[in-house]
Amino acid sequence: MPGYSLTKDDYLVRLRRIEGQVRGLQRMIDEDVYCIDVLTQIASVTKALQKVGLGLLDEHIRHCVRAAITDDPDHGDAKITEAVTAIERLMRS
Amino acid sequence: MPGYSLTKDDYLVRLRRIEGQVRGLQRMIDEDVYCIDVLTQIASVTKALQKVGLGLLDEHIRHCVRAAITDDPDHGDAKITEAVTAIERLMRS
Amino acid sequence: MPGYSLTKDDYLVRLRRIEGQVRGLQRMIDEDVYCIDVLTQIASVTKALQKVGLGLLDEHIRHCVRAAITDDPDHGDAKITEAVTAIERLMRS
Amino acid sequence: MPGYSLTKDDYLVRLRRIEGQVRGLQRMIDEDVYCIDVLTQIASVTKALQKVGLGLLDEHIRHCVRAAITDDPDHGDAKITEAVTAIERLMRS
Repeated sequence: MPGYSLTKDDYLVRLRRIEGQVRGLQRMIDEDVYCIDVLTQIASVTKALQKVGLGLLDEHIRHCVRAAITDDPDHGDAKITEAVTAIERLMRS
Repeated sequence: MPGYSLTKDDYLVRLRRIEGQVRGLQRMIDEDVYCIDVLTQIASVTKALQKVGLGLLDEHIRHCVRAAITDDPDHGDAKITEAVTAIERLMRS
Repeated sequence: MPGYSLTKDDYLVRLRRIEGQVRGLQRMIDEDVYCIDVLTQIASVTKALQKVGLGLLDEHIRHCVRAAITDDPDHGDAKITEAVTAIERLMRS
Repeated sequence: MPGYSLTKDDYLVRLRRIEGQVRGLQRMIDEDVYCIDVLTQIASVTKALQKVGLGLLDEHIRHCVRAAITDDPDHGDAKITEAVTAIERLMRS
């Protein structure tokens, strides 16, 4: 298994932690925690989400895109275009 | 109440929706939904979080920073430095 | 003068360095330098540009927004809305 | 030639335009143009740079990474790790 990729369970653990952090944000707003501290927490949740995205992207290129390239050059091209469009969406978000 | 800002309830509604989207991501991973579709959803959750962050930042400048500036110039300066540092953290995330 | 802000000359020095880096990128493309090295350089130029943006934003809030707030509450509100819109544009870029 | 990719000349044209925009930023600072207008221009230069980066990344995956995958699985894996690291750097910038 390649270096960067995570198992399904790793993703679920990370996403459950992110879900907990988003619940924490609701508590912070509810208890009128100081804005800047809420913003720091938002930056940290965003970073955690982007990490999950990068892990998925790594696996996607390593498995789906690679398989498409090996099977059929045209299909490989279509998969690469799709992956780059997804990267662009992540970068703009 | 100024144009950009949201009420406490608006933030809670948005954050509950984001929490639901993060749970949706767990379901997607669990059901082996196609990677690119998961990535599209991650980009959308990130955007929603950043919007909450921008709303809070707007309110923070409009209320806390403004009050500090009006009360005491030195305190105003410290608050502005703190806000710009928070913006930097959001941009890097 | 507050901590974060730069003088006009500092901005000009930084922007001239960024201009030189963009010319360097052209040379790299022209000489077929390895893609990943060009991408590393693009990330570094982008970061330098964002730093200039953050510096300007800091100064803008510290001077223009502050002056507007002190002079006239309504004008202050309009300036804050304008600044947050600019922050949103920087974050999306 | 695949859909997303640009020729070497396209990149050079884009980078020369970006270089001109960075010179324009220096003029704006020098002539004390309103901060928010400078920030708008910085956001636009950043977006243009990121587009060049995405184009290069597309080509890199389409050519170098694909060739590595086809030639030798281990080499393919190393190339994918390298590409994902470059994507992470672009996203953080």
